[in-house]
Amino acid sequence: MSALLRRLIDDLRCLPGVGPKSAQRMAYQLLERDRDGGRRLAATLAEAMTGIGHCRRCRDYSENELCAICLGGNRDQQLLCIVESPIDLAAIEQATGYRGNYFVMHGRLSAIDGRGPRELGLDLLANRLLEEGVQELIIATNATVEGEATAHYLAELARSADVRATRLAHGVPLGGELEFVDRGTLALAFGSRQSL
Amino acid sequence: MSALLRRLIDDLRCLPGVGPKSAQRMAYQLLERDRDGGRRLAATLAEAMTGIGHCRRCRDYSENELCAICLGGNRDQQLLCIVESPIDLAAIEQATGYRGNYFVMHGRLSAIDGRGPRELGLDLLANRLLEEGVQELIIATNATVEGEATAHYLAELARSADVRATRLAHGVPLGGELEFVDRGTLALAFGSRQSL
Repeated sequence: MSALLRRLIDDLRCLPGVGPKSAQRMAYQLLERDRDGGRRLAATLAEAMTGIGHCRRCRDYSENELCAICLGGNRDQQLLCIVESPIDLAAIEQATGYRGNYFVMHGRLSAIDGRGPRELGLDLLANRLLEEGVQELIIATNATVEGEATAHYLAELARSADVRATRLAHGVPLGGELEFVDRGTLALAFGSRQSL
Repeated sequence: MSALLRRLIDDLRCLPGVGPKSAQRMAYQLLERDRDGGRRLAATLAEAMTGIGHCRRCRDYSENELCAICLGGNRDQQLLCIVESPIDLAAIEQATGYRGNYFVMHGRLSAIDGRGPRELGLDLLANRLLEEGVQELIIATNATVEGEATAHYLAELARSADVRATRLAHGVPLGGELEFVDRGTLALAFGSRQSL
């Protein structure tokens, strides 16, 4: 096999979920059927890896100093939703009608990984809470142990800035059958039952 | 979402088997964890899409005029294996101990797609059969209707050049249970039964 082709197959494996077989299929298919698409992808990839940084205000990915949401000004400035990663932000934008602002931590508090409040940009967050008239901090960290610990820290931070802190509801997922819901989730959902 | 990030997600979808969800996951993961890998992939991809052409002799992919196999000269020049696509060549190289040469058609005879002997480079093949002292043409086209039709044409071509033509054996795949083998394959395997 050509050395360049082998290098292409190796390099394609930096994509998540791509093993040796699919990398080979991708390389051959691009060469055989879509060289223009491959060239376009190469150009965009090079541009994105270098050009995309963090929005100065919310820390979401952006190729400009301020992202479209922060720049737009048509968002409710009283609501601030804090997430662990940009992909969580994208999921909330796609699924909900939320019209407030965001803050992206790019991680969670983790002593093992050496991530403290400073690494997550929480000094920046504290300033925003104090200066921007935020009324509610919506804490949308993951429902993992570290996510919960981070949520508690954020709730304290909100309290000290006199901002109301809320957390996404836990419960039975839509379409979920009680029989197969784990015990912890079922207990939480039972405890937080709501009137019909 | 940043316009450049959206463009990256769109362009990743030119890869086979990559839908909107996995393209999104790829883009975010590269940005978050492996920008160097992404840059390297971009460079290799650009180089490969433009630099990889066809070997002048066997028509396999190669960034040089002659591929490594044709250039090497340590192959049995009496054996020539003909395949539909470069990925078939790679599969045979990986699975078998074959030490002869190859010829890649980049397709199969197909009236509908307007692919005749000329498009498949069969004039080049005919020259090789006449000039290179080939003793056996191993026809490794796919076991599809068009692949079989192409194999018959190639067998005729070999006969007219006084070269022996062989075809990969059909039969029960290794690990295959007779109950689940299709009827056509079972009938062929039964007919070609061999002494133990």
